[in-house]
Amino acid sequence: DSDEFFPGIPVIPYSPDASPDNVLCFRHYNPTQVVMGRSMADWLRFSACFWHSFRGTGADPFGFPTINRPWDDGTDTIENAKRRLRAGFEFFTKMGLKYWTFHDRDIAPMGDTLEQTNKNLDEMTDLALELQNKTGVKLLWATCNLFAHPMYSNGASTSPDAHVFAMAGAQVKKGLEVAKKLGAEGFVFWGGREGYQTLLNTDVRRELDHMGAFFKMVVAYKKKIGFTGQLLIEPKPKEPTKHQYDYDAQTVISFLKTYGLDTDFKLNIEPNHTTLAGHGHEHDVVVASKFGMLGSIDSNTGSPDLGWDTDQFPMEIKNTTLIMKAIIEQGGLAPGGLNFDCKVRRESIDLQDLFIAHIGAMDSFARGLMCAVELFNQGVMEKCVKDRYSSYDSGIGSSIENGKASLEQLEEYIKANGFPTPTSGQQEMYEVLFNNALKY
Amino acid sequence: DSDEFFPGIPVIPYSPDASPDNVLCFRHYNPTQVVMGRSMADWLRFSACFWHSFRGTGADPFGFPTINRPWDDGTDTIENAKRRLRAGFEFFTKMGLKYWTFHDRDIAPMGDTLEQTNKNLDEMTDLALELQNKTGVKLLWATCNLFAHPMYSNGASTSPDAHVFAMAGAQVKKGLEVAKKLGAEGFVFWGGREGYQTLLNTDVRRELDHMGAFFKMVVAYKKKIGFTGQLLIEPKPKEPTKHQYDYDAQTVISFLKTYGLDTDFKLNIEPNHTTLAGHGHEHDVVVASKFGMLGSIDSNTGSPDLGWDTDQFPMEIKNTTLIMKAIIEQGGLAPGGLNFDCKVRRESIDLQDLFIAHIGAMDSFARGLMCAVELFNQGVMEKCVKDRYSSYDSGIGSSIENGKASLEQLEEYIKANGFPTPTSGQQEMYEVLFNNALKY
Amino acid sequence: DSDEFFPGIPVIPYSPDASPDNVLCFRHYNPTQVVMGRSMADWLRFSACFWHSFRGTGADPFGFPTINRPWDDGTDTIENAKRRLRAGFEFFTKMGLKYWTFHDRDIAPMGDTLEQTNKNLDEMTDLALELQNKTGVKLLWATCNLFAHPMYSNGASTSPDAHVFAMAGAQVKKGLEVAKKLGAEGFVFWGGREGYQTLLNTDVRRELDHMGAFFKMVVAYKKKIGFTGQLLIEPKPKEPTKHQYDYDAQTVISFLKTYGLDTDFKLNIEPNHTTLAGHGHEHDVVVASKFGMLGSIDSNTGSPDLGWDTDQFPMEIKNTTLIMKAIIEQGGLAPGGLNFDCKVRRESIDLQDLFIAHIGAMDSFARGLMCAVELFNQGVMEKCVKDRYSSYDSGIGSSIENGKASLEQLEEYIKANGFPTPTSGQQEMYEVLFNNALKY
Amino acid sequence: DSDEFFPGIPVIPYSPDASPDNVLCFRHYNPTQVVMGRSMADWLRFSACFWHSFRGTGADPFGFPTINRPWDDGTDTIENAKRRLRAGFEFFTKMGLKYWTFHDRDIAPMGDTLEQTNKNLDEMTDLALELQNKTGVKLLWATCNLFAHPMYSNGASTSPDAHVFAMAGAQVKKGLEVAKKLGAEGFVFWGGREGYQTLLNTDVRRELDHMGAFFKMVVAYKKKIGFTGQLLIEPKPKEPTKHQYDYDAQTVISFLKTYGLDTDFKLNIEPNHTTLAGHGHEHDVVVASKFGMLGSIDSNTGSPDLGWDTDQFPMEIKNTTLIMKAIIEQGGLAPGGLNFDCKVRRESIDLQDLFIAHIGAMDSFARGLMCAVELFNQGVMEKCVKDRYSSYDSGIGSSIENGKASLEQLEEYIKANGFPTPTSGQQEMYEVLFNNALKY
Repeated sequence: DSDEFFPGIPVIPYSPDASPDNVLCFRHYNPTQVVMGRSMADWLRFSACFWHSFRGTGADPFGFPTINRPWDDGTDTIENAKRRLRAGFEFFTKMGLKYWTFHDRDIAPMGDTLEQTNKNLDEMTDLALELQNKTGVKLLWATCNLFAHPMYSNGASTSPDAHVFAMAGAQVKKGLEVAKKLGAEGFVFWGGREGYQTLLNTDVRRELDHMGAFFKMVVAYKKKIGFTGQLLIEPKPKEPTKHQYDYDAQTVISFLKTYGLDTDFKLNIEPNHTTLAGHGHEHDVVVASKFGMLGSIDSNTGSPDLGWDTDQFPMEIKNTTLIMKAIIEQGGLAPGGLNFDCKVRRESIDLQDLFIAHIGAMDSFARGLMCAVELFNQGVMEKCVKDRYSSYDSGIGSSIENGKASLEQLEEYIKANGFPTPTSGQQEMYEVLFNNALKY
Repeated sequence: DSDEFFPGIPVIPYSPDASPDNVLCFRHYNPTQVVMGRSMADWLRFSACFWHSFRGTGADPFGFPTINRPWDDGTDTIENAKRRLRAGFEFFTKMGLKYWTFHDRDIAPMGDTLEQTNKNLDEMTDLALELQNKTGVKLLWATCNLFAHPMYSNGASTSPDAHVFAMAGAQVKKGLEVAKKLGAEGFVFWGGREGYQTLLNTDVRRELDHMGAFFKMVVAYKKKIGFTGQLLIEPKPKEPTKHQYDYDAQTVISFLKTYGLDTDFKLNIEPNHTTLAGHGHEHDVVVASKFGMLGSIDSNTGSPDLGWDTDQFPMEIKNTTLIMKAIIEQGGLAPGGLNFDCKVRRESIDLQDLFIAHIGAMDSFARGLMCAVELFNQGVMEKCVKDRYSSYDSGIGSSIENGKASLEQLEEYIKANGFPTPTSGQQEMYEVLFNNALKY
Repeated sequence: DSDEFFPGIPVIPYSPDASPDNVLCFRHYNPTQVVMGRSMADWLRFSACFWHSFRGTGADPFGFPTINRPWDDGTDTIENAKRRLRAGFEFFTKMGLKYWTFHDRDIAPMGDTLEQTNKNLDEMTDLALELQNKTGVKLLWATCNLFAHPMYSNGASTSPDAHVFAMAGAQVKKGLEVAKKLGAEGFVFWGGREGYQTLLNTDVRRELDHMGAFFKMVVAYKKKIGFTGQLLIEPKPKEPTKHQYDYDAQTVISFLKTYGLDTDFKLNIEPNHTTLAGHGHEHDVVVASKFGMLGSIDSNTGSPDLGWDTDQFPMEIKNTTLIMKAIIEQGGLAPGGLNFDCKVRRESIDLQDLFIAHIGAMDSFARGLMCAVELFNQGVMEKCVKDRYSSYDSGIGSSIENGKASLEQLEEYIKANGFPTPTSGQQEMYEVLFNNALKY
Repeated sequence: DSDEFFPGIPVIPYSPDASPDNVLCFRHYNPTQVVMGRSMADWLRFSACFWHSFRGTGADPFGFPTINRPWDDGTDTIENAKRRLRAGFEFFTKMGLKYWTFHDRDIAPMGDTLEQTNKNLDEMTDLALELQNKTGVKLLWATCNLFAHPMYSNGASTSPDAHVFAMAGAQVKKGLEVAKKLGAEGFVFWGGREGYQTLLNTDVRRELDHMGAFFKMVVAYKKKIGFTGQLLIEPKPKEPTKHQYDYDAQTVISFLKTYGLDTDFKLNIEPNHTTLAGHGHEHDVVVASKFGMLGSIDSNTGSPDLGWDTDQFPMEIKNTTLIMKAIIEQGGLAPGGLNFDCKVRRESIDLQDLFIAHIGAMDSFARGLMCAVELFNQGVMEKCVKDRYSSYDSGIGSSIENGKASLEQLEEYIKANGFPTPTSGQQEMYEVLFNNALKY
């Protein structure tokens, strides 16, 4: 096929017994394999990220672009944009990815006016819709890029300039329309510049009030046009700003509750952001999930010794197991998914690297799923945790949980029963139980 | 006076022109000096911390106690406790500190039963009340130590054991009674063990539900006994636990709103905790203040290159200026104060070090106050910030702020006015304006 | 046996097919199993740490001791010390540990004079020798505690007080004698207080000169008494001090070369210290190894989101694989070993926790060994790395390596051959190859 | 003047009494003012950085360029390069900066061949020489950019490809020639890509051996052409690589000693790199200085809460005082200087911001100089430090320092004198003494 963008690379097969030097096959991810009542594909709902994999250049703060794709002539034309999009869908298809995600500005060039810009987006989303229909690949979520253009350098909805706020609103209006057109299952807001570089020039309260006002308009417009996808906010603590208002899961929940938005939004959690906020890899996934706020996951990883967002492909079985454990506990992630918000290293310049990276990540998550399932099947850890809290299932514990206890009653209880005796937390035993389930 | 604990050390004088080798005088803190309509003492509301300064031993994870005070025989008797308390009040008085703070367990030995324990506390608070009345030193806030005893090793209100929860409740009941007795202006909760060491053994949701239930009982009992002090939660991200539920200001606000407690509590912010959570020194003070949640401050500092709570005396004029700027902007900190939750280094074993440390901190805050006042008097930075947001004072900006704008209107605005033009954030100019006010 | 300290706990068996709820057996560590020509026991050379496991109390900066052992009456008597030591050797034996390590002050109480202190140490090391002979457990290395006593609060060999320096020398003299007596295979220096808390009071150069002088005396005395064990320095970046002079592997190498000590010392690397210095877990192990300086390993781990030394038991297969890969590449670790410088969490208060923790760590290292062996057996990664550098095997690359090339020749080479073409670094492929070897 | 690049901005005057809203004047930096026997200009030796201030675009990993200069048409032509250079020298002159620094690739476009590239560099350095002569601005140091071009993505002298190594050599050969031509007082190597992204694909030892070989060729060629400037290595721990071989001062010293290069190189210390390596701001400056290795300083700062290199202008008086204290203690910094390796924030897009930023930094260093001088004039801290170590001035301390003591003698000393008594480290007193000198 002369229109093939990845000649010589076939649809990636599932070959669990391939020889060690074969890195272009899945060893663990078998989409149709059923575990705990669902197919692997259903549990994992993998999604490719258009911006990293088809717009990434390998440039970094100290280096020029390194990645040149044969189909990309470097121009900002519609023709080039279309080639990129076709290449993307060939990639999604060959990888067996059922979902994709994009920013508005990734897929269509900006024009000199809003009208021209939106027209470009219309033309490109026509093609996207065609390719979606042809391939069966669906849109996990769409998002607007409100951080890369210089106009947003001081923020979008938190810009000190109302003109910039208006621009962000106009852009998101179109973004919601496009999301609806393409059947997106969600719509994400990542507030890359919504924060401050220095408190000295910043009116924090006024900026957050503006951000609250912005999201209220979003909710209103979403309802007006009948877009039914889930609205999502993606927390990140810092970078590019010194402080990003959506610091972590709990900070965003605080914001949503402060402005009365907590029933309209859920969270899109990215573990590399979680670790930058000083938490363990799975922390925000777990916390968001337990409070009913986990909407989707940007499944990547970082290096814990680095203080910036490296957006690496998730390759650690321990981490993928912990994520999948949380997903199983909440009964699945739909309509969210595991979106690979990851980029190949800037030194990984070959086309093949793009495939290998996704294969490694998908196999790592398939292994994580199988390990988490093993953990549930063994059942030991689950039972231990349940036993650990069993004093709340009756007596004074039950009174505490159902809101009937008072400080006076607690005092009486201690007078009657004396001081409590410490019990072991058994962390090492839990770690051993966990390791013993890592069999895949 | 044979009962003097610090013989040879007088009441610390204000001596702005003392010779360079005189470190036992204030050079900047002049309590009666009036700035912006109030005395320095009113603006600063300094408070001494009983635990660090009168119970600290200098022990650390790798070393034995280093600090031996002549009045402390190392026993856990009431007599020894009384000597410590008398020494404390002599210190407060000689330092010119108007407030103090303590944990229940700092001032009175624990007994074998709750009854005996509370009896000890009664005896010691009788003395405390006598000393307060005699010296005029007041209680900024009281708190319960729910983290040091082994029974609390797996948490207090978030313990998996309801018996421990009950114990915490009984202890706080007494704590509130004591706070009322001593006229405390506040009551602080620092959840040192309210968190997790590993997610593997932890039911996060159940633990947080318990913590919510606990605070509801606290609010009810506070009202019942007519204690009118402000309830405060002190955020800290980690240490001793891997993750503390009260991570930072916004996390606590999220918790309070989730459990309907946000009108009953404010925050006690400690900058050394703020920096451990990955924020700038003054971040949580500013954020809490702007949302009406700043109740009090544990005025200390840490070393930004260290990953644990060093509780150092605040000695950086830049930082104290930023804190005082926030306090001035909210019109003062009362009924909260600047509590020195700081400890002398374990190598600083002389009695004199305790005085010098507090002098250095109080002078640093006095300088910070004067610099912040200078900043306001110059007025340039304030005007620049106001101008920066002026586009929200009328037109589309005003519509945004008053909730009348919609995405459609914003789109129309951009169609009519075109894309916005970037403007400079001028961070360096703000830094220069700030530096130019650092004159003291 | 009425003298049994761990009644009901047998010698831990190797039971690879035990049921999931059995946590008192090895599933992977089979000491006599031969891999790559050696027994697992030979490759792994596990060692128990006396201080953490038999002197640890669970106290932390915010909490009192939590761990009470039935044999330990809390006194500082010789009798108590002997019970602890006997309990230790029962533990080593039941765990199948072939080595142990201790500080002088762990095993024998300090007296009022040097003479009495050393006499206590003589009495205790007589017992240690007896127990070593009886059980076959050997001493991996000894060390002196030069950081816990208040006299060392400002440093030992870097103390500003020459009297303290002398004390450290006297203590180490005895330590070396004891190490010889017990047949230690090494002697470790961890400079817990050799550093500074503030540069303001510190003469860095004079302190480092003193430390250099100290180690020269150590080398001289070691030779004089004919102690043939390896001298080792253990790097740590900070904690308890703000800056520890032995920051990391390369810093210690810099120090050793500056003072002409680099042929007399090797390094004892602790990964939890490596990560605190900002490196990846295995970094210092690899760097030290490649420069011939890796002497032994304190095989523990930390939590990457915590900024202090948690000394956790190593439970991550990825990390143990990377460590074992480095050890295999240098042909083994003898006369060093894998010393478990780890402590059970302070909440893990049961005797059983001590066993489970060591079992988990030993199984994790056995799995790491098997994975590293699998990686070598597959051979793909090794070949890829070799190929990656093959341009240095001939031509201009060979001239560079043998020191014959000059800048002029390099310029000529570029004039003749043009600019080089970038090649892929293939990080993701290496990660996949690595993951594919994680089969155990 | 129609050729003026900064019309309306005059030579920045020294106006200590300017009104608060005047930010285009020096309030503290008065170049001819004499302190401690030298002019401020002599003590401070400020240098401008061509790359940040004249090639910086404001692009960051999440955003497009924000900074457009009127003279820069965005092309890679010689004409554009010349305009940039002329603008630079106008800026240096108006700022009163006596030195500048550049990378080869900053000032001249790369050609298709080495010959063309070097020809471009010749043409541009002819102009640079002319401008230097005309303005009196001198070249503090030159450097080669061996990290931005894709060919260097896997390293330069540590590239796995010998062809790349050769390219780096050819480039540095020309760089040294250019440095000589322009009378550079130094030549800096910053190994931005000399490190690894993953240990899995890296032969650390072979790479470091190559780096050692590279620097030997540099030393040889430097001598051959008679370039007398100081060779300098600039440490940085990470970013862009996961681990940079030149991690910090001591790591570089370790490398230099390992390869026998320690008499040929000194260090160029950048505090923002020092803090990223986990040290205090001034640590590497002090350590390098005390071991005779401090050659020059890249005087910038970072935000301690951020994990990447922000290259901010140094605006903290405390930090500049500590740096100047170290410089005074080593008797000045010549032939090195204080190079402003700093960039205006990407939001600071106005030409005026560039001036204000440098003014703020220069004033901050002038204040730091005056505070450090005050500290020396007061003399109290210096005396306290000297007294602290006085036990090494005679007796056993003196024997230790002159290498005559042995462990046996130390033991005898303790037997005769007993255990040492702890003394206070007095950190807080030192902090107070320091603060009391901050008068400017």
